[in-house]
Amino acid sequence: MLYIVGLGLADERDITVKGLEAVRASERVYLEGYTSILMVEQQRLEEFYGKKVIVAHRETVESSSDEILRDADRVNVSFLVVGDPFGATTHTDLIIRAREKGIPVKTIHNASIMNAVGATGLQLYNFGQTISIVFFTDDWRPDSFYERIKENSTLGLHTLCLLDIKVREQTVENMMRNRQIFEPPRYMSVNLAAEQLLEIEDARQEHAYTADTLAIGVSRLGSDDQIIRAGTLAQMRDHDFGKPLHSLVLVGHRLHLLEAEILRENAIDLDSLNQVLKRDYNIEK
Amino acid sequence: MLYIVGLGLADERDITVKGLEAVRASERVYLEGYTSILMVEQQRLEEFYGKKVIVAHRETVESSSDEILRDADRVNVSFLVVGDPFGATTHTDLIIRAREKGIPVKTIHNASIMNAVGATGLQLYNFGQTISIVFFTDDWRPDSFYERIKENSTLGLHTLCLLDIKVREQTVENMMRNRQIFEPPRYMSVNLAAEQLLEIEDARQEHAYTADTLAIGVSRLGSDDQIIRAGTLAQMRDHDFGKPLHSLVLVGHRLHLLEAEILRENAIDLDSLNQVLKRDYNIEK
Repeated sequence: MLYIVGLGLADERDITVKGLEAVRASERVYLEGYTSILMVEQQRLEEFYGKKVIVAHRETVESSSDEILRDADRVNVSFLVVGDPFGATTHTDLIIRAREKGIPVKTIHNASIMNAVGATGLQLYNFGQTISIVFFTDDWRPDSFYERIKENSTLGLHTLCLLDIKVREQTVENMMRNRQIFEPPRYMSVNLAAEQLLEIEDARQEHAYTADTLAIGVSRLGSDDQIIRAGTLAQMRDHDFGKPLHSLVLVGHRLHLLEAEILRENAIDLDSLNQVLKRDYNIEK
Repeated sequence: MLYIVGLGLADERDITVKGLEAVRASERVYLEGYTSILMVEQQRLEEFYGKKVIVAHRETVESSSDEILRDADRVNVSFLVVGDPFGATTHTDLIIRAREKGIPVKTIHNASIMNAVGATGLQLYNFGQTISIVFFTDDWRPDSFYERIKENSTLGLHTLCLLDIKVREQTVENMMRNRQIFEPPRYMSVNLAAEQLLEIEDARQEHAYTADTLAIGVSRLGSDDQIIRAGTLAQMRDHDFGKPLHSLVLVGHRLHLLEAEILRENAIDLDSLNQVLKRDYNIEK
C-alpha cells in the first residue's frame, strides 16, 4: 500500500492518528520537501514516528518514482506531504504511476492553508480562486495573478494569496557546473508580497486593489505563535509578521458584519480599520 | 483553555494527535452536532477518547454557551467540530464569547471538504466560491446558488456544492406543541442535488449549466468506501452514490489536461465523458 499522508500545518503532532498509524506501519517513509515546509526539524519527525524519514526533493519524486514505489504492492510505503496531500499537483503523478503498477493507494487528509484560512474570520464560501505570488527577479516579474484578483474583486470575493517558497535554489554557476550546492531557503514575507502586489497595480492601474485595500496577513498558521493581523495593503507592506510561513488574504466587498467584527479584533490599527470599513464596506461600528 | 478541535472527515482516528491530547486533557468534551456529521457513532468516539461526549445541538450552543464555557479559565474544555473548526460560522460566536470572558482559545485544525475536495483530481486554485444547496419544499425553493454558479462558470472555475443536512427536524405539529420529538436525519444525495440544479436551470434558462455539464459526485470522502465519479449532471441525477455524506462539484472550463486525465479514471461512462471533454473542453485523448 502507498499511503499519501497529510501532515497538517505546524508540527509533528498535527498528523492524524490514522496517519501516524500508517507511518508506523510503513517500511519506508518519504517526506515531500519542495512545495511547503513544516515548522519543525526532520529529526523531530523521526523521533516522533520512530522511523527514518527520507526527504524526497522534486528531482527524486520525478525521476525516482520507481524507487519510491518499490515493493509497495507487498509492503507499506508512506509519502508525507505538508498540509493536505492534494494541495499541490506534484503527487498526482505519483498516484497515477502507482495505479499503473497496480499498487493500492490510500490518502490520509489533513488541514491545509486552503481551509485553515478560515481562522482569519473570513467565511470560506466567500473566497474566490486562490493565487500564487512568486519572487520577482530583475527580469522576471510574472503578474498573471493580477487578472485573477481582479476577477475575484469584481465579484466581491476574498482572495487567498499563497507566497513563494524557494528551498533548493542553485546559483547559475553551481547549476552550470552541475554542483548540488543550494542557497539558503527563502520564504516570501507578507511585506514583500504586498510590495509586489502594489508594484503591479501601479503598472496596470486597473484598480484590482489599491494601497487602501483591506487585507489580512497570516504567519505560522496553526502554531502556538501564529499571527493574524488585519489592515490595509500599505500596512501589510510594513507590519512585522515574524518568521515564515506567511500568507496574505485580500478582503472582498462581500464582507459580513460578523467577518468585520473579527477583523476588528485582529486590527493592526483599529481607527484606520474602522475608517476603511466605513468608507469601502459601509460597515459602521 | 477552550480547545476547538477539528475531527476531520470520516472516523474517530481522523483526529490529529494534538487534538486527541487536548480531548484527553479536557474536563468536559462537547461535540457540535448540527452542521455536519461524522460517519461513526458517538459511542465509538467516547471509547476512543476515554471520555464522555456531550452532544451540543444548535440550541445548546446558542443558549448555553455559559455552560459550555463554565470554568474554562481554570480547566480545559474541548468543543469538537466535524471537519475543520472554521468550516461553519457557528463556532465564531462561541470564540467571541470566550474571548469576552478572558478564556484562552486554541484551535486545532483538520481536513474538511473545502480542501479534501482536491481528491477529485481538480486543482483547488481553480475553484470559485462554494455554494450550498438546501432541500426544496413545496413552497420554499431557494435558488440563490444559481447566480453564484453562473459567476464561477463565466470565469471557467469549478464550483463545490455543499449538500443539505437535516438532523433535528420537527414536524409542524411537534414544533407547535413544543415537543422535543425529531424526525429521522436526512442527507441530500448527489441525485437530488442534480435534480434540483436542473429544475432551476429549466426555470431560469441562463445556461449557468445544463444536463450535459461535467460534474463530479463524491460520497463519504476520506472513508475506506469513498466514491468519486465523474460524468454529466444528467448522470449525477441517476448514479447511485450509496450512503451519505454526499457532495457535488461542477467542473469549470479552465480544465487542465492532468485534471481531465483523473476525471477519465473516475468516469461513470468513459465514452460519454470523452465526448464531453472533446466537445466542451477541446480536450482529446
